[in-house]
Amino acid sequence: MAVSLRLPSLTLTNLFSSPSSLPILRRRRPHGTLLRPPPLAASFSSQRAEAASAQTQDKSKSSKGSDQVITPRSQDFNAWYLDLIANAELADYGPVRGTMVIRPYGYAIWESIQDYLNVKFKETGHSNMYFPQFIPYSFIEKEASHVEGFSPELALVTIGGGKELEEKLVVRPTSETIVNHMFTKWIQSYRDLPLLINQWANVTRWEMRTKPFVRTLEFLWQEGHTAHATPEEAENEAIQMIDIYTKFAYEQAAIPVIAGRKSKVETFAGANKTYTIEAMMGDRKALQAGTSHNLGQNFSRAFGTQFLDETGQMQHVWQTSWAISTRFVGGIIMTHGDDAGLMLPPKLAPIQVVIVPIWKKDEEKVAVLNAASSVKEVLHTAGIKVKLDDSEQRTPGWKFNFWEMKGVPLRIEIGPRDVSSESVVISRRDVPGKQGKVFGISMEPSILVAFVKDKLYEIQSSLLERAIAFRDSNIISLIIYLFEVKKANGSITLDCGKTMFSLNLVFGLCYNTDILKKHGIFFCSNIVDVNSYDDLKVAISQGKWARGPWSATNEHELKVKEETGATIRCFPFEQPEGIKKCFMTGDPAEEVAIFAKSY
Amino acid sequence: MAVSLRLPSLTLTNLFSSPSSLPILRRRRPHGTLLRPPPLAASFSSQRAEAASAQTQDKSKSSKGSDQVITPRSQDFNAWYLDLIANAELADYGPVRGTMVIRPYGYAIWESIQDYLNVKFKETGHSNMYFPQFIPYSFIEKEASHVEGFSPELALVTIGGGKELEEKLVVRPTSETIVNHMFTKWIQSYRDLPLLINQWANVTRWEMRTKPFVRTLEFLWQEGHTAHATPEEAENEAIQMIDIYTKFAYEQAAIPVIAGRKSKVETFAGANKTYTIEAMMGDRKALQAGTSHNLGQNFSRAFGTQFLDETGQMQHVWQTSWAISTRFVGGIIMTHGDDAGLMLPPKLAPIQVVIVPIWKKDEEKVAVLNAASSVKEVLHTAGIKVKLDDSEQRTPGWKFNFWEMKGVPLRIEIGPRDVSSESVVISRRDVPGKQGKVFGISMEPSILVAFVKDKLYEIQSSLLERAIAFRDSNIISLIIYLFEVKKANGSITLDCGKTMFSLNLVFGLCYNTDILKKHGIFFCSNIVDVNSYDDLKVAISQGKWARGPWSATNEHELKVKEETGATIRCFPFEQPEGIKKCFMTGDPAEEVAIFAKSY
Repeated sequence: MAVSLRLPSLTLTNLFSSPSSLPILRRRRPHGTLLRPPPLAASFSSQRAEAASAQTQDKSKSSKGSDQVITPRSQDFNAWYLDLIANAELADYGPVRGTMVIRPYGYAIWESIQDYLNVKFKETGHSNMYFPQFIPYSFIEKEASHVEGFSPELALVTIGGGKELEEKLVVRPTSETIVNHMFTKWIQSYRDLPLLINQWANVTRWEMRTKPFVRTLEFLWQEGHTAHATPEEAENEAIQMIDIYTKFAYEQAAIPVIAGRKSKVETFAGANKTYTIEAMMGDRKALQAGTSHNLGQNFSRAFGTQFLDETGQMQHVWQTSWAISTRFVGGIIMTHGDDAGLMLPPKLAPIQVVIVPIWKKDEEKVAVLNAASSVKEVLHTAGIKVKLDDSEQRTPGWKFNFWEMKGVPLRIEIGPRDVSSESVVISRRDVPGKQGKVFGISMEPSILVAFVKDKLYEIQSSLLERAIAFRDSNIISLIIYLFEVKKANGSITLDCGKTMFSLNLVFGLCYNTDILKKHGIFFCSNIVDVNSYDDLKVAISQGKWARGPWSATNEHELKVKEETGATIRCFPFEQPEGIKKCFMTGDPAEEVAIFAKSY
Repeated sequence: MAVSLRLPSLTLTNLFSSPSSLPILRRRRPHGTLLRPPPLAASFSSQRAEAASAQTQDKSKSSKGSDQVITPRSQDFNAWYLDLIANAELADYGPVRGTMVIRPYGYAIWESIQDYLNVKFKETGHSNMYFPQFIPYSFIEKEASHVEGFSPELALVTIGGGKELEEKLVVRPTSETIVNHMFTKWIQSYRDLPLLINQWANVTRWEMRTKPFVRTLEFLWQEGHTAHATPEEAENEAIQMIDIYTKFAYEQAAIPVIAGRKSKVETFAGANKTYTIEAMMGDRKALQAGTSHNLGQNFSRAFGTQFLDETGQMQHVWQTSWAISTRFVGGIIMTHGDDAGLMLPPKLAPIQVVIVPIWKKDEEKVAVLNAASSVKEVLHTAGIKVKLDDSEQRTPGWKFNFWEMKGVPLRIEIGPRDVSSESVVISRRDVPGKQGKVFGISMEPSILVAFVKDKLYEIQSSLLERAIAFRDSNIISLIIYLFEVKKANGSITLDCGKTMFSLNLVFGLCYNTDILKKHGIFFCSNIVDVNSYDDLKVAISQGKWARGPWSATNEHELKVKEETGATIRCFPFEQPEGIKKCFMTGDPAEEVAIFAKSY
């Protein structure tokens, strides 16, 4: 008895993994609420976005100092995003169209990202260095596909020191060309390899449609550049770095990215292969959150970057490059944020705990503030990032909203009664209302610290679980799976290839559980069929992601883009087993691809 | 019996301070050797500087892999500097004239600088953030003296995304204008003040005469920007930041800078007052190593940055800005370097200890390498930055030279005999030959770690002491001091104001000790005379710095520059007491100024 079953197998594999091993994916290539927000300037607010982007000085300060409302997420995702960025004081528009000022709170999130990645890059043997941002225009032209990809987006310096320049200078959109120019000077022998470097820098791309953090004319990033003696080493490096990004996304940012390979159409201009991590935002659009390129010998041939190998032969080096940018901050906002504002994963939060002291009478004030200060000291000593908001200009209620808007994971309230009972009230940002509130936590340092650390851990896990559930309920698999059902010890399990699933989970997670329910128990040893392009169209029109076997042409890919707005986000590393047929052409397909609309 | 005595009082005060309080200076305003270097590419080498700066790809790799010689420092300071930078692999020329690639070892020094300062900035309440680097040209024109100062040095973007731009964009030479544009949006009330921010960024100045680290077309720096409600707060902030720079220079970089105020002529374009730290390089030229500006209301008036004060009045904010750049790396090289190469102060050294294992026979190798690894582990665990050079392609002698060139403060040698005696040989970079070498230091962790830490501390102190002695033997005071001599307990001391000096020290340090010797003991209660412009000319022509009372005009200052090449480096915070007369005009003078040729 065989039936159709649409099963997003990605879901299941991830859910059945232990949390700590989440990013370690099976590979095909082994080497490889309406609220009152803060009163500060809200220049990114959707209502005032256009005015704020004007180059003229904004003198309309009338709205400053009054409480504002942010657009509900469900009503207008883009307006919500812009309002949140303004009200949580993450960024503001720069005077030049498409540029962004990263404000201290937004920059502190970027610093958390830098702190983690910088250590990982050094642990894997990379050194930081710095290349000039001005690149002779002729360099960009040396690698054919590179110039094609980047020339429409270039900012050019034509005047320097009051004089017209003989050669226009490109303000770096990325540094492969200048890196190779220098590598050619530094690399001579296999002994100079591998050469593993990284830089933290600003880059400029003349984008027409910009959006804070997600796509700005200038942005901050790190760009790694490596040169190797063999293609295998380069491939291993490219995979290693996308793995680091994946682990970072899951474990630090609580973003369950899907890691995989880009299609040829979507591959970086000048690369042989591009690996990517794709994240699903709250509006279910995909965000390319980090990429790692196997450049092969494309740039080394264009720039003559050669080395004498161990056999005395001259060879061109094999290279990689890889990057994560301030765009990732946008990914964090759009993955976790809600109508109350930002929601930060504790591991990246600049402030993990905010303490709000509460008193009414003057005679209560000293005792409350003393208790609050000592709680702050206890948490600070335990290595927790804590802020005491003891300002007297704002009410506790205003502060609650303000720090919720800023996405601080935990809030501690201390009032006169808490002082006398030597306890505190602790509220979770991610669980609204009374459900997220615990009363009577002892101020005794060992108890309090253990409780806070435990809650921060819980929030970190909970944000990831919630994001996984959201992602997986919004990926439609175009593959029909058939299962062998096993009954043992009274429970029913489904055997799909090598992975065992319990029926309840399958019911809970499948796209079309009706089919399962109707047909009950059934059997098949392998995948027998695939769905159609029509199914993809339905999925995309519903705002979802679609996953299906793909072996069609670039032209087909462009047709999908044109007709549905969706692009191939990646061929995930994690692939279902079994024989597959391309849902577009019916030809045999080796891999499934994920399609989605994207930022 | 009164006589002339030329006394560089700066010298004495500093030498008599305890090392820990070195940078805490008395203020007038209370608020306020030929060797075989490494075989790698040496593009900065003086011999090949011009070729390397050419934009065409340098295919002349013939010199790579062969041992080279750097120019002796005494023979040609500039050639020595360029050779050192190339051979120690600190930097290389970028493809665009005047640009520099900061290589990993040079960048690691910059990271040490960043790590220290970043903490200090945050401790004093500053937040990091990021402003776009493209500034509308019209912004630069808003502050009159600012545009005058910077317009000859601008790089301009005129084409973006393939189109001619309506308004040219300045690639930031500094960010005061765009900062004020944003501050105007964010500041409304006294509650928004002080606003204390910093950014780590690249800046571009179209310099015609460039020199790696010291003056490059693009460089890296941090720029702090603050806004305050009162002029006193702004002045305190400007002083606080130059104090942090001074402390950093003395305690971390072992550079005995002289901190003070710039003359009007040398004040930053747009500032009311510029504070500076001036460092004496090995060729005795001055290097401006960091500045802090009191901007007054100049930018707030130009950009309309106002706030409502506590009395309900609208006021323009009072501002500061302050910066240290990658130029400081050049300062470290030129302060401490010698003919063997770089010499790094341990606190800023990316590698504090290098271990060189030595063996001849294969049977010795394993034991030696095991011992070297365990020594490395012991030091690493103790928090010491240690590198084990166990490569087999080079001889120990080659490695000695290589790591000396790189300025690593301590070298540990481990040979077969050391293994059997369970001891090591330790050599100091700053004390050449046998004098700096200690044999038979036990490998026992507690003994070894204590010894290494102690030596690193000694080297740090010793570099500073040596630099102070060099500086002070090269500053000529144009002031005539007269002393009250006190004889007590058989020793003779001189009383100059409130500071007591022993005669031996005065003999050892004075510019003209002959006078002292001839006249022996003498008496006077105060300064009675000053020296002349002619004395300044002599001092400058000898390559020294000159210090003397100054109250003359800007025109006089420019005349000194024209005739001698020297500029006023600063009016030092630390001023001699007593009545002074301007050495140029004979008019009363409140302060002494320091004159020197500079980078």
